[in-house]
Amino acid sequence: MKTPDNIENVHWVPEWFESYLFHAAIPQNAPEWMKEMLTYTLSAGGKRFRPALVFSVADDLGLDDEQVKPIAAAVELLHSASLIHDDLPSIDNDDYRRGKLACHKVYGEGRAIVTADILFFQAFSVISEIEDVRTKANLYTMFSKTATQLGMGELADIEYEGKHPTLESILEMYRMKTGAIFGFCFGAPFAAAQKENVVEETTDLGGRLGIAYQIYDDIKDVLGTKETLGKTPGKDLSHEKSTVLKYVSIPDAKKMADEFLEFAISGLEALGACQTANFLKRVSRTLKMK
Amino acid sequence: MKTPDNIENVHWVPEWFESYLFHAAIPQNAPEWMKEMLTYTLSAGGKRFRPALVFSVADDLGLDDEQVKPIAAAVELLHSASLIHDDLPSIDNDDYRRGKLACHKVYGEGRAIVTADILFFQAFSVISEIEDVRTKANLYTMFSKTATQLGMGELADIEYEGKHPTLESILEMYRMKTGAIFGFCFGAPFAAAQKENVVEETTDLGGRLGIAYQIYDDIKDVLGTKETLGKTPGKDLSHEKSTVLKYVSIPDAKKMADEFLEFAISGLEALGACQTANFLKRVSRTLKMK
Repeated sequence: MKTPDNIENVHWVPEWFESYLFHAAIPQNAPEWMKEMLTYTLSAGGKRFRPALVFSVADDLGLDDEQVKPIAAAVELLHSASLIHDDLPSIDNDDYRRGKLACHKVYGEGRAIVTADILFFQAFSVISEIEDVRTKANLYTMFSKTATQLGMGELADIEYEGKHPTLESILEMYRMKTGAIFGFCFGAPFAAAQKENVVEETTDLGGRLGIAYQIYDDIKDVLGTKETLGKTPGKDLSHEKSTVLKYVSIPDAKKMADEFLEFAISGLEALGACQTANFLKRVSRTLKMK
Repeated sequence: MKTPDNIENVHWVPEWFESYLFHAAIPQNAPEWMKEMLTYTLSAGGKRFRPALVFSVADDLGLDDEQVKPIAAAVELLHSASLIHDDLPSIDNDDYRRGKLACHKVYGEGRAIVTADILFFQAFSVISEIEDVRTKANLYTMFSKTATQLGMGELADIEYEGKHPTLESILEMYRMKTGAIFGFCFGAPFAAAQKENVVEETTDLGGRLGIAYQIYDDIKDVLGTKETLGKTPGKDLSHEKSTVLKYVSIPDAKKMADEFLEFAISGLEALGACQTANFLKRVSRTLKMK
């Protein structure tokens, strides 16, 4: 798979991935009305950044796209489902996502909650398509831990609203909320390549990428517009969210994020995932600017 | 494990199961405030009927409790998490569950939603404790399908509110919403005993038990009191829920449920799960009366 320089107007993932992702999202025998709900948020686009990381690391390891497509679909389903819950009035209360009305604004809160639940479960289901039994069992263990970490990060994010957690706690929350999935994107292709000894290290690198990503996001929330973000800016402040900007200035936050990102990139290079490291270097320009 | 006649005042599951269940619910490194949220709904008691089915079928197959405890914990976590989402204002809007305030009434909706998400993921995590790799991979596939069916049943339940689905669609919704987990309770111990050829049949039997269970529940919702139910009665009617009572009288519904239950019991006997069949016969007296 190619990961070209101009990341704005190209697909980062194989062309067939979108239809595979929809196949993964929709359970057997789902009626039409249910299919519509399950694919609504996925259809809003999104960069497919996480699947792109999976395909890129796989390529670094000499695995082909076919071998890791269930991993790529699982991370995107988990991510999308978590966004649906995130946007709910009782959590981030965001009416827009990726420039479209949020799922609960279209179908109501109850349906949005359960739609996301089904997408969570379908994320687990698609992992069954991994053929090698040992790899499948390993990936399930890793993926369930990843999902739990994501949930713990989300819960901490809510719990910290209006409170004064330490900077360290906020970074730990970012690591779980955003970094856990990245860790799986890095680690799962290694596991599929029977290199399970690096899983702990890749999880750590993913965590650091997640922290960087989340800090850039905090900055965008302050500096961005609805058009550039695809969602409402200034939400963190209005929700009394605990972000790193409670403790550090925007330039210092940017510097902190750059350091976390740099650490993740160097770590990937050290593990021989050079294409992915280069991909992240190119992507980082967008992450930082947008 | 003994499943004595007087089911009201005895434990159906091994004594150590409660602490194992809590261990399964709580992720590593969870802070105290998070542990409290994650165990709140589990601490409200509940009959542990689903784990009891798992232990009973396992016993029928000559497996010991230790071998199937991850399965028993997984079904209870999945069930409890689904109840937390069920009780939310935008779904069933139930302030009470098992006689205690519902999770969202204590911690707020946002925390309740994500707490249940974590419990869903922990249900998957505990399956990792199954030692045999092939069994583990099989159980993961079965469990993710089960969870998806549960979600599909929930979503259909919401979608049908105030509408007029056919009686057949309502029964299918019951099969998914309530029967899918029972099917896994029956099928998973067979899978653990390397008897995977009966999984389809046990899923069907579980589906029928679920339909029976749900119809008895519909009847209780009409005839019960808050004291006997531990939750608010008359909710189905006030929510314009689509229940079988839209189509059949209470005595006819009771007869219908008895037939589904009888089918499930006979099927278990035919598969040699006689202790479980007897267990269900004894339990059915409570199911019908309460």
